[in-house]
Amino acid sequence: MHREARGVDQGRLERQLEFLREADKLKSILRRSRVSFADRRENDAEHSWHLALMVMTLVEYAEPGIDLLRTLQMALVHDIVEIDAGDTIAYASAAEQAAQAEREQAAAERLFGLLPPDQGARIRALFDEFEARRTPEARFARALDRAQAILQNLHTAGAAWQQSGVTVTMVRELNQPTILAASAALWEHIDGRLAEAEARGWFAKG
Amino acid sequence: MHREARGVDQGRLERQLEFLREADKLKSILRRSRVSFADRRENDAEHSWHLALMVMTLVEYAEPGIDLLRTLQMALVHDIVEIDAGDTIAYASAAEQAAQAEREQAAAERLFGLLPPDQGARIRALFDEFEARRTPEARFARALDRAQAILQNLHTAGAAWQQSGVTVTMVRELNQPTILAASAALWEHIDGRLAEAEARGWFAKG
Repeated sequence: MHREARGVDQGRLERQLEFLREADKLKSILRRSRVSFADRRENDAEHSWHLALMVMTLVEYAEPGIDLLRTLQMALVHDIVEIDAGDTIAYASAAEQAAQAEREQAAAERLFGLLPPDQGARIRALFDEFEARRTPEARFARALDRAQAILQNLHTAGAAWQQSGVTVTMVRELNQPTILAASAALWEHIDGRLAEAEARGWFAKG
Repeated sequence: MHREARGVDQGRLERQLEFLREADKLKSILRRSRVSFADRRENDAEHSWHLALMVMTLVEYAEPGIDLLRTLQMALVHDIVEIDAGDTIAYASAAEQAAQAEREQAAAERLFGLLPPDQGARIRALFDEFEARRTPEARFARALDRAQAILQNLHTAGAAWQQSGVTVTMVRELNQPTILAASAALWEHIDGRLAEAEARGWFAKG
């Protein structure tokens, strides 16, 4: 069962471990959304875990034939660029989002550049695929990324929505196309819960 | 691209979302180890993300032919039972570990039992596989689970080792068989860094 360490490129392993050490910083990048069972904001690392768990639990609602392995890997790396670029609210203006996208490109260069080049290119490609949203895998991961944030807000009585001035109309307009494109069942469920949340006054007033 | 939500079992989806909501509690289960770039303990959710990222980054050191998808899924669910059972230090006594194993079995019943039965059984099987350590996938996930904790300690000057009275001999005795069985290259690297850490006085005194 043991194999010899001989022949392993220790420099390669060191680059990989340096990337994994740097990735630890994702645990300090705070999101607007809150955790459901404690009085604090969620960080990107625990969000990424929750997203990956959602992907594996809800994959039956994705387009048939989706590649679950690639989707999980996308979920695990999709926010790493925020170590350098920071988190931007999904409801930011187009100008803010363009600036964020530019910061994220530079961040991807630096962070995935810590890895050995062949591996850095493969992981960078996963991040680019997630951002481009042109494959079923990327669309599903993105839809659940949005759904995760909405569910956290539903579990915390809309605290982040009220704080950021987000109305139910904003939530529907931003998220319906993304989630519906990946899973009609999931959108139907969320849409019903948004209506309940509105009745309870969990959104900012329009 | 859209498919009809018609025909989806909403009760099934609700069970899955209830499981995913309950899983949020993993973000409040604190480990002994610390995060590398902030003054606080690490929680199980961010640890699980870090472990999954390690699995995908270091899979080339595992036994050839390992099933990466199953290994990642194991990494994502391996600590969920600690929501009910709590975290136990790897250096606990045999009696404490037996009590912990019993608590974890009950926790697995309850937590994976929130899911639809077919899916709950599949995810429970991943957890059982991780615990049994009889497959290459489980051995690799377990080895990296141990390596992650050691690396966090190396990145924080052994804070948790000193606090828990852990000596370098304890670290070597507990972890060498587990990590070496999965990857000689990784153990060789860690072993060298343990020697450096010892020279710096980062362990409890024997």
